[in-house]
Amino acid sequence: MAPAAPPDPIAELLTTYNELNSSSIDELLEVPSPLEFMRYVARNRPFVVRGGASDWKATRTWDLASLKERMGGMGVNVAVTPKGNADAPVESDNGELLFVKPWEEEQEFGEFVDFLVEQESMGKRDGEEVRYAQTQNDNLRNEYSELFADVAPSIPFARIALTKPPEAINLWIGNSHSVTALHKDNYENIYVQIIGQKHFVLLPPLAYACVNEKKLSPASYVRDDRELVVKKEEGDKVPFAVWDPDSGEGGTKYSSLGKPMRVSLGKGDMLYLPALWYHKVSQSCEDGICCAVNYWHDMEFGGSFYPLCGFARNVALDAPKN
Amino acid sequence: MAPAAPPDPIAELLTTYNELNSSSIDELLEVPSPLEFMRYVARNRPFVVRGGASDWKATRTWDLASLKERMGGMGVNVAVTPKGNADAPVESDNGELLFVKPWEEEQEFGEFVDFLVEQESMGKRDGEEVRYAQTQNDNLRNEYSELFADVAPSIPFARIALTKPPEAINLWIGNSHSVTALHKDNYENIYVQIIGQKHFVLLPPLAYACVNEKKLSPASYVRDDRELVVKKEEGDKVPFAVWDPDSGEGGTKYSSLGKPMRVSLGKGDMLYLPALWYHKVSQSCEDGICCAVNYWHDMEFGGSFYPLCGFARNVALDAPKN
Repeated sequence: MAPAAPPDPIAELLTTYNELNSSSIDELLEVPSPLEFMRYVARNRPFVVRGGASDWKATRTWDLASLKERMGGMGVNVAVTPKGNADAPVESDNGELLFVKPWEEEQEFGEFVDFLVEQESMGKRDGEEVRYAQTQNDNLRNEYSELFADVAPSIPFARIALTKPPEAINLWIGNSHSVTALHKDNYENIYVQIIGQKHFVLLPPLAYACVNEKKLSPASYVRDDRELVVKKEEGDKVPFAVWDPDSGEGGTKYSSLGKPMRVSLGKGDMLYLPALWYHKVSQSCEDGICCAVNYWHDMEFGGSFYPLCGFARNVALDAPKN
Repeated sequence: MAPAAPPDPIAELLTTYNELNSSSIDELLEVPSPLEFMRYVARNRPFVVRGGASDWKATRTWDLASLKERMGGMGVNVAVTPKGNADAPVESDNGELLFVKPWEEEQEFGEFVDFLVEQESMGKRDGEEVRYAQTQNDNLRNEYSELFADVAPSIPFARIALTKPPEAINLWIGNSHSVTALHKDNYENIYVQIIGQKHFVLLPPLAYACVNEKKLSPASYVRDDRELVVKKEEGDKVPFAVWDPDSGEGGTKYSSLGKPMRVSLGKGDMLYLPALWYHKVSQSCEDGICCAVNYWHDMEFGGSFYPLCGFARNVALDAPKN
């Protein structure tokens, strides 16, 4: 005799998760020990440490003037987009949803941040581009190595618990016009706010059926004279979440069962963003800029978690969306 | 455009797990620190510590004579079955598969172990019953409290990592005629061998589709004069795995993708059996008995792991079995 199956395993998964887990983030008052951290890793649950990096030299001393003084004259990689939408789904002229990467170019650091500050104070003019230093290629130990001594060389509790140093340490500088679309990374991520604020909308990896992942053709913005135009590219399609947890657009019949967790980071706050969590990130400025650093650690692929997440994703891809 | 779904998410789940994880158990040479233990908990992966409890007084001093001397005259709960099959699926006379609990009765300890020893040396006679002290109700701190001082009052690395003392500490005494059928528990389990050997066949929780869980009507063996007869009971059906990973009987089309992990424990060996892992357990004797102790700790229901396991189970229940 076959046992009775529940009506919809996906709905039950989301409901069970919501019953067993809060949609408010845990707030710690000091950095955790490696063991305390490992308990969060085991549950794949985020936390924020208020003021966890307040004593870093970066947090205490970085501002517009000091950054310009130290980085002035150097060339940095800048992502340029028409609407602050680097690495995001964009509808093409013929109505196809594409995954569009930003136009990247080198700019002199002082000129780059002056542009951010002026745009932040004057407002974005019609047709004006948005700029964001957001290379995720260990840039703080390379392009911005001048600044690296002012942040922790690693996050000790994470390095010890995960038994490995950070794979990449990235610096992010932008203004409030840039928004990072909902996406996930295969990394255990420690995010530290230095100047301004970041606003995260978070969803656990098992919310695949909510985020409505679609396979999109790759494309890039290309600077054509002064205008940025979308250019479709050859190559494999990119699976990407198209649900916007703020506007509700692009969702599925399951999206209402996703309970986004929202957290804002201020100066010196430290966020543990667990591997595979979906995150959408917007920002507010102080002195016209927003600056943060994050530490990526390779996630654990052994054990049950990664295969189970892939399973939930595959079942969600198969399921009717409406 | 809907993305292409893989042909069978369940098969992909099992295959991915096998690719990323060994089917050999990790062997540690000393007990782990709480942090090292927590890394195993996070991955939901078992390990064995060879000789991890060799210095326990129980391991050094317990034998047939000393146990009889200390427990002699006391009444203990004994599970009685015709074939050593306590808590196992049994086909009834009319062909229905039932979940059959053992007949339980109190026996004088000396008489109980003498029976085990004689049966072990003479062989089980036709129609002879099998006896097993296997109450999992914290019996070592109650029924067998006389012996409790000889084992560790807790497993420090587990107590510290999991932030709680053991929920139950259980003593098991039987002979080689008892086999515990494949099942799972909602506990983080530390198992310590004292006398003889235990032979475990282990499967991770995501192998639901392999173990062929069915909902069986509950029943019990009842002693009727000298014979043990199966008596069906009222009450909710019991979901129970019917696949035998040794004989291969009772499987599904997915069972061949389950890669059982096998490990034997000798005197003083310590096994971490992670929460929700399926385990089938058989045993070998020393001096005619097999004796072990286990420590159950409540598992973590928060985070992603427990909901994802429930999801894999629900999808497996829905899937065609052949």
